[in-house]
Amino acid sequence: MTKQKQTIDEKSLWDDARQMLRKAEKDGVETAWDRLEQQTPHCLFCASGLSCRNCTMGPCRISKKAPLGVCGADGDVIVARNFGRFVAGGAAGHSDHGRDCIEALQAVVLGTTQDYIIKDEAKLRRLAAELGIVSEGRTVLEVGRDVCDLFFANYGSQLPQLSFLCRVPAKRREIWQNLGITPKGVDREIAEMMHRTHMGCDNDAANTMLHCARTCLADGWAGSMIATEVSDILFGTPRPRKSLANLAVIKEDQVNILVHGHNPIVSEKIVEAVNDPALIALARKKGAAGINLAGLCCTGNELMMRQGIPMAGNHLMTELAIVTGAVELIVVDYQCIMPSLVTVGNCYHTKMITTADKAKFSGAEHVKFEMHNGREQAWKVVEMAIDRFSLRNPDRVEIPQGPVALVTGFSNEFLLEALGGTLTPLIDAIKAGKIRGVVAIVGCNNPKYQQDYCNVNLARELIKKDILVLVTGCVTTAAGKAGLLVPEAIAMAGSGLQEICGSLAIPPVLHMGSCVDNARILQLAALLANELGVDISDLPLAGSSPEWYSEKAAAIGMYCVASGIYTHLGHPPNITGSELVTKLAVKGLDDLLGACFAIEPDPFKAADLIDERIRQKRQALGLAQ
Amino acid sequence: MTKQKQTIDEKSLWDDARQMLRKAEKDGVETAWDRLEQQTPHCLFCASGLSCRNCTMGPCRISKKAPLGVCGADGDVIVARNFGRFVAGGAAGHSDHGRDCIEALQAVVLGTTQDYIIKDEAKLRRLAAELGIVSEGRTVLEVGRDVCDLFFANYGSQLPQLSFLCRVPAKRREIWQNLGITPKGVDREIAEMMHRTHMGCDNDAANTMLHCARTCLADGWAGSMIATEVSDILFGTPRPRKSLANLAVIKEDQVNILVHGHNPIVSEKIVEAVNDPALIALARKKGAAGINLAGLCCTGNELMMRQGIPMAGNHLMTELAIVTGAVELIVVDYQCIMPSLVTVGNCYHTKMITTADKAKFSGAEHVKFEMHNGREQAWKVVEMAIDRFSLRNPDRVEIPQGPVALVTGFSNEFLLEALGGTLTPLIDAIKAGKIRGVVAIVGCNNPKYQQDYCNVNLARELIKKDILVLVTGCVTTAAGKAGLLVPEAIAMAGSGLQEICGSLAIPPVLHMGSCVDNARILQLAALLANELGVDISDLPLAGSSPEWYSEKAAAIGMYCVASGIYTHLGHPPNITGSELVTKLAVKGLDDLLGACFAIEPDPFKAADLIDERIRQKRQALGLAQ
Repeated sequence: MTKQKQTIDEKSLWDDARQMLRKAEKDGVETAWDRLEQQTPHCLFCASGLSCRNCTMGPCRISKKAPLGVCGADGDVIVARNFGRFVAGGAAGHSDHGRDCIEALQAVVLGTTQDYIIKDEAKLRRLAAELGIVSEGRTVLEVGRDVCDLFFANYGSQLPQLSFLCRVPAKRREIWQNLGITPKGVDREIAEMMHRTHMGCDNDAANTMLHCARTCLADGWAGSMIATEVSDILFGTPRPRKSLANLAVIKEDQVNILVHGHNPIVSEKIVEAVNDPALIALARKKGAAGINLAGLCCTGNELMMRQGIPMAGNHLMTELAIVTGAVELIVVDYQCIMPSLVTVGNCYHTKMITTADKAKFSGAEHVKFEMHNGREQAWKVVEMAIDRFSLRNPDRVEIPQGPVALVTGFSNEFLLEALGGTLTPLIDAIKAGKIRGVVAIVGCNNPKYQQDYCNVNLARELIKKDILVLVTGCVTTAAGKAGLLVPEAIAMAGSGLQEICGSLAIPPVLHMGSCVDNARILQLAALLANELGVDISDLPLAGSSPEWYSEKAAAIGMYCVASGIYTHLGHPPNITGSELVTKLAVKGLDDLLGACFAIEPDPFKAADLIDERIRQKRQALGLAQ
Repeated sequence: MTKQKQTIDEKSLWDDARQMLRKAEKDGVETAWDRLEQQTPHCLFCASGLSCRNCTMGPCRISKKAPLGVCGADGDVIVARNFGRFVAGGAAGHSDHGRDCIEALQAVVLGTTQDYIIKDEAKLRRLAAELGIVSEGRTVLEVGRDVCDLFFANYGSQLPQLSFLCRVPAKRREIWQNLGITPKGVDREIAEMMHRTHMGCDNDAANTMLHCARTCLADGWAGSMIATEVSDILFGTPRPRKSLANLAVIKEDQVNILVHGHNPIVSEKIVEAVNDPALIALARKKGAAGINLAGLCCTGNELMMRQGIPMAGNHLMTELAIVTGAVELIVVDYQCIMPSLVTVGNCYHTKMITTADKAKFSGAEHVKFEMHNGREQAWKVVEMAIDRFSLRNPDRVEIPQGPVALVTGFSNEFLLEALGGTLTPLIDAIKAGKIRGVVAIVGCNNPKYQQDYCNVNLARELIKKDILVLVTGCVTTAAGKAGLLVPEAIAMAGSGLQEICGSLAIPPVLHMGSCVDNARILQLAALLANELGVDISDLPLAGSSPEWYSEKAAAIGMYCVASGIYTHLGHPPNITGSELVTKLAVKGLDDLLGACFAIEPDPFKAADLIDERIRQKRQALGLAQ
């Protein structure tokens, strides 16, 4: 965790990052690490969750001297309220993204756009069948309309239950029912969380924490899951494909465009535009060898897994990608886009384009993407990038060399297909102890850690222990750069995992997608539990977010725990000011939900904690250790 | 505003409050004023909006030394994000209350409850007609079902527009359309606000502020308005009735029950229960002369305006009511209920009962009210209160004497009726300058002010200037205790107002309801504007919340401004850390929306500011000064 002054080597595990950190220093570019130093030490009240500004009788800070806020709220209540709004922010991010996906699908099925199509009709029909929507004898557009209506209804509160609760094991649904945390609707739970945390509403920390679980369940089993499923319908369900990662994917002789954010709706059109021969010709006319597109963050994941577009980097690489001096333009949608990118871009010739009205950036140019103009706007943006090429200063260009190969795109659909249409081979491998368990490592970077040190080492340790690792989000790039996302990585795995992955010719660490695609992992966990007739919490599974920074990661952690998945975090959210809330998170929830959080910054110790949990679960199931 | 050590006389304007503050001191009871003292000085970062804890790369504090958060967000962005979540909390409070009202109406029309009925069928049918729902030839239950469906749809995002936008003047709707702030749906805007304020989404403070306006418009013209209209349908549309206010409404010889919170669904059943002869007989058997019910805060307003139940006090009186030592039981729903009430109750024999799952209080007893058991639970709660009577310690009882009379219940329906079915007489009076303007004074208490000093003095000053004052929420009790809510108060008004109110035999300060009932004032403003064929911002109107504390008050202020109503606040929200946001609030919005905020702690200066604004508006309309 944070030290006052970090050397460049301490800041990141990676050579590409270190090289660019040196260049940034030379070029006078400030990065997140510099700002973290300025912001250290942090306010202990805010960091422990003990500050409240939910009304203007305050703001209040809870201490021994002042143990109550002006209203009388104690530290437990204040911490729980703050955590409630924190995860509501995360749940809202994923779910509002999901809503945008439904709106996109709606525009297609209503015919109000010609710029998007349904790429995976079979998935749409499969989904319709799963959701009880008649598909036979109807056109895909008719079916799509019903699917849209049903998905929109998941955001309200008038459905008997969220659509994808049909996927949840019965035992789990019963636990939710008994605790009163069965979510009614995505937006409703978020709005209710904001209501509950107003002064004079919920003043029982445990009760607020239960609503945190409910709100996040609505994210995992509706908002995020809808985002994933609709993205697959519109842009295709991922299948394994090869790609490359790290800053070396930026090309010195080409017009470089980076896409960043989360929702593939914008970036999928950019992919089309950069492949337009007319635009390529235009780039050549301007002296470039071509147009090169690379991804960042989750928009990068979305493009990589469906289109094989290379990945320039994860969260802490976003500034450093621009520091190469070779990026003409960065086009963003929303979430996790550091506002500093505008400033860093201005240090070079990099133009920043925003596309969503809900995510404008002061200093960036806004090119509003709408469903009916996605194609037109994408072409415009790519032209703008080509125009910038001549502004590039070759003397300020320095691009790290040597991209790393990876394999991406392991959707559940592909996994089932690879296993011969049934999960039985996977279950047999788990039963036999060849795969001792399955762990999802997800989430972010955080400059309080050496970048990707924990992400990578946790994955390495787990596969050694014959634990299959699934990655999404920014951990993808970490695992990819560490060489873990190729079939050859089985050499680093235990003998059992080596055997199973080897026979399937898959890596021991599987890329399942972007952050909303953690819903794929939920679905897989539910499929396994249903197949075995047990609850998710009975399975030898775990989740982990070693270097998380985002409210979304906290929401993911919360829906994993509430779904019965033991979840490791490298550091706690801002809850440590309340012993009650902290104990509930790391222990009490285990009694209520059959899963809880574990906090451990050291990836080796975290691997042991997870391993022990898996051991216990295997034992309870009567499986070989 | 706050001083380090306040004398008891400095703490409140009222004798009843002062007497109880002395008793509290003697009894060793801590109150909000004591806790404010402990919490002073406040953290300047939180107070100015410059602290951010929306991710775990921080928390961050913006200063000259550290002008950017770890992500690169500057003070403007952080202040706007914090304000966004602040008003989202307020909008969610009102709107989730509105949703509960729809659910109640739905239970009635679907026949799943026998405990509630539709009291104002005529209003339901009028509303249906206004909303384009066929009413003729259909039963009230059939019509009610359609109204419920439509209202629920207002919380989603699939309606072409919010239902009550039909009430908004065309010019105002055009302004919203041009600014892109026409709200799509209540919950949707709240969820989008939480999304936008996640790291790396909206990083343009002005853009975030526009979404604040949109979110709050969804509150004012949907969430709150639906709460008001449905409450009228279920419990009756208010008409003037006499009642009493201050702590003297608590009766020494009776079982005293206080209702507190906002939603009348619970308290209306309590009213029925305390009037049950069997329960009265039981109370007598236990030695009490009867059962006395009094209200607090907005639940108090709801009961007072529909049932004439007396008002024990507003926000800062809630603890002091218990300090009388004569309250057997306080039953609450949600919002603005100080968690300290449990502790204060424990200092005496007062039992606290919570009723909503979304607002539990540690240490209180939970009696869950549901639509199907409201009656049963109300009876149970009243029995519990009767049981507590014997636990009362007469030596610790001290009740202030001398309740003040007031008249309550001025709904728009009644006003129109009193004016002979048309607004023309009111408009004529405004045109003639007999009523120079209309100002709504709304909102809360805040221990940073001498309680009700600003609320009362602003009202007094305005009526002197021939400005008709409308009050809601906690300002009601302030105005009532100051003797302003009786027809005789015209003696304190200017000659024009005296003439008009005198001829109608109404007070110069009209009680329009609870805090959600500010929607009645929006409706009245729109009716006036539509009648005159102008925009709301053209009218000589203003809003004011002199002693506000709640996120809801900020949301109300924001929807007033966005609706074109100049709005005075006694103190700013936590935005002063950003010059950009502050200037936008107090000036820039005027250019965009035709209205802005004015900040002024002194009620006399505030009266002058408002008077000047009204003068300008009259001048622009070519009216006599």
